[in-house]
Amino acid sequence: MAAKQRGKRDNMNAFLEEAKAASRELMLLSGAEKNRLLREMAGAMRSATMDIIEANALDMKAAEENNLSSALKDRLLLDEKRIDAMATAVEEIAALKDPVGRVIDGWVTDDGLKIEKVSIPIGVIGIIYESRPNVTSDTAALCFKSNNVCVLKGGKEAEHSNAAIAKVLRATLKRNDLPEALISLLPDASREGVAKLIKMDKYVDLIVPRGGEGLIRYVSENATVPVVKHDKGQCHTYIDKDADMEKAVKIAVNAKVDRPGVCNAMETLLVDRAIAAEALPKLKEAFDAAHTELKGCGDTRAIIDVAEATEADFDTEYLANILNIRTVDGVDGAVAHIVRFGSGHSEAIITESYTTAEYFLNAVDAAAVYVNASTRFTDGGAFGFGAEVGISTNKLHARGPMGIEGLTTYKFKIYGNGQIR
Amino acid sequence: MAAKQRGKRDNMNAFLEEAKAASRELMLLSGAEKNRLLREMAGAMRSATMDIIEANALDMKAAEENNLSSALKDRLLLDEKRIDAMATAVEEIAALKDPVGRVIDGWVTDDGLKIEKVSIPIGVIGIIYESRPNVTSDTAALCFKSNNVCVLKGGKEAEHSNAAIAKVLRATLKRNDLPEALISLLPDASREGVAKLIKMDKYVDLIVPRGGEGLIRYVSENATVPVVKHDKGQCHTYIDKDADMEKAVKIAVNAKVDRPGVCNAMETLLVDRAIAAEALPKLKEAFDAAHTELKGCGDTRAIIDVAEATEADFDTEYLANILNIRTVDGVDGAVAHIVRFGSGHSEAIITESYTTAEYFLNAVDAAAVYVNASTRFTDGGAFGFGAEVGISTNKLHARGPMGIEGLTTYKFKIYGNGQIR
Repeated sequence: MAAKQRGKRDNMNAFLEEAKAASRELMLLSGAEKNRLLREMAGAMRSATMDIIEANALDMKAAEENNLSSALKDRLLLDEKRIDAMATAVEEIAALKDPVGRVIDGWVTDDGLKIEKVSIPIGVIGIIYESRPNVTSDTAALCFKSNNVCVLKGGKEAEHSNAAIAKVLRATLKRNDLPEALISLLPDASREGVAKLIKMDKYVDLIVPRGGEGLIRYVSENATVPVVKHDKGQCHTYIDKDADMEKAVKIAVNAKVDRPGVCNAMETLLVDRAIAAEALPKLKEAFDAAHTELKGCGDTRAIIDVAEATEADFDTEYLANILNIRTVDGVDGAVAHIVRFGSGHSEAIITESYTTAEYFLNAVDAAAVYVNASTRFTDGGAFGFGAEVGISTNKLHARGPMGIEGLTTYKFKIYGNGQIR
Repeated sequence: MAAKQRGKRDNMNAFLEEAKAASRELMLLSGAEKNRLLREMAGAMRSATMDIIEANALDMKAAEENNLSSALKDRLLLDEKRIDAMATAVEEIAALKDPVGRVIDGWVTDDGLKIEKVSIPIGVIGIIYESRPNVTSDTAALCFKSNNVCVLKGGKEAEHSNAAIAKVLRATLKRNDLPEALISLLPDASREGVAKLIKMDKYVDLIVPRGGEGLIRYVSENATVPVVKHDKGQCHTYIDKDADMEKAVKIAVNAKVDRPGVCNAMETLLVDRAIAAEALPKLKEAFDAAHTELKGCGDTRAIIDVAEATEADFDTEYLANILNIRTVDGVDGAVAHIVRFGSGHSEAIITESYTTAEYFLNAVDAAAVYVNASTRFTDGGAFGFGAEVGISTNKLHARGPMGIEGLTTYKFKIYGNGQIR
């Protein structure tokens, strides 16, 4: 057992050492070459449609045997149309502006050194994800476009699909005399394999977990490699006394109802006490029409007839069409509630007051702070990033919607002509 | 014992909760107000010179009793001149451009949302440092200037000095009706106290260890709070066949000899085989004149008479006037050596060839990569940052010399006019 364990560890070491070595080769690949290869990968995926569907059928059969829910099975399923969409996504990534080599800053020092701060790849990125097989080609393409090596660890339930997709991408690399190690699946996909991967800071530069809360918590608590994490979104909308009530109702309903199961959906609505008597009945009417289950604080329930919201409710990410409502004392009361319960994801104020809006924008510490708009806009697509790597709830490195620039870091290039100190 | 431990933990929790709460108050302090307070702190330090010197005398007495080296005692000593210099440093920090509120990026989305990416404070920053008491006022001022709360953990040997300095700074806060918790010393300064602090990610947003290798390794291996770390500097200079030999000798000697005990000093000199026979004797002459102890690879020793450099030597940060010399096969050989032994700190090439210079700049992954200049320039002062928080060997968040911007993160402010999805 001990010998077997050691064998596994050594394999992992050798595998990641190869990935690290490959990352140096990738570092110098030009933008034109990267884009040509990405388009070739997209074409190869379309050509391999039947092979991918066959592999997917094995996963679907196992899903059937394991009684996976129909929602999970739908996430897992690949057909011709979905594979074409995956290929198109890779082509869209090829069309993005090159995130590497961007001169972020530049100046000449008193000593006459010309300094350029330039974006560069991070190196080796581990991506840990669940169910959807399209994440395999999406993240491989995003990493390749940013000159990063990716080590992919998908869900067990999608293993055949992921292997088939990775095989196509790797074959394209090989055909072009590039190391296959640039894109690979983690060989030991067990829980122990993941536990090892996230501690391999000698070879791996960043871990991006894309999955459920349990996975993310496990990874962030145990990794020694830096993690871009995506915690819960406990998002609030505050309706100020100076709000345009029509906008307020429309935005509040959208923030809750449009897609309750995602992280940028509102969980708690805060209403300024000064307008509660007028606003709450209108809000109740709109939310009733949207079949939202409402819970309220004591003051709210004195005005409208809703269930009681407990302290624990204010701390719950429902991810469902359920909403807490709390009456607060103006913008300061709203900020105090958000400080106490917010998760630093997305927070909104609805107001026509310039001063109150600016105060809220400055006083609330969250990745995205909105005036007069729905928190639902917090994502890479809506921000105009073209492609989204994830939404980070880290405070450092990348915060909020993370475009492909989130997969780069920087170095300083210093041009001298003989300077010494 | 268990009860006492629990008591300590609860104290730490309460202490850090207070720091976190204070950070929200600090978040909204204006630039003018911050600068006025910093100047008041500088004045207060000058006024308290005698109190600080008295406290310092207690530390000096303990240093005497504990037989500290004269170098350590010199670091510890405060006199009128040094306290004045500390006050001046705080005034210089007041004069820096405000790092907070900077609009880093901005655009309007297709939905008509105006997005601003704005720099904001990180929150609560723990600084763990050793010996020099001036770090107390320096880092407190840097954190205050960037609207961050600091929790300072100085060395045991400087405890009275640090307490006296912190007392002056906190008295200024109190006089201005600001919470003293904005600047504080960690109450439990034991090893256990540090162990707890670096796991308090609920309250602490960043840890900056400034000290010896042992401290930094301990912190980065055990922290759950993000750490800006400063590992070793295993720096190289490569003299290419197309180098201007006069520049090459001057730069190589400077990189090694100017201050061998610091992280940006060169540890290994790489010499292109094509010019080794000509270059090595000139280099030996110059280094002999600078009393540098030389070690060489086999090929080097075939040309000049120096001691043998082992594999382990190439991996050693001497921090002394000792230098390894290795003959390599052109720029590719140099890059391969740096990939194997470099620590990602500072690397230099000496060449007049445009193509070779650009290749080296792109192929070497380090925080700072130089052409025709000494690696000794890697620091905040030489980069023109005004104040230096440290030199980071992290790959993410902050890399290389870290100015006060390294103590900020960002948020997105989104200005809408009723947008929903």
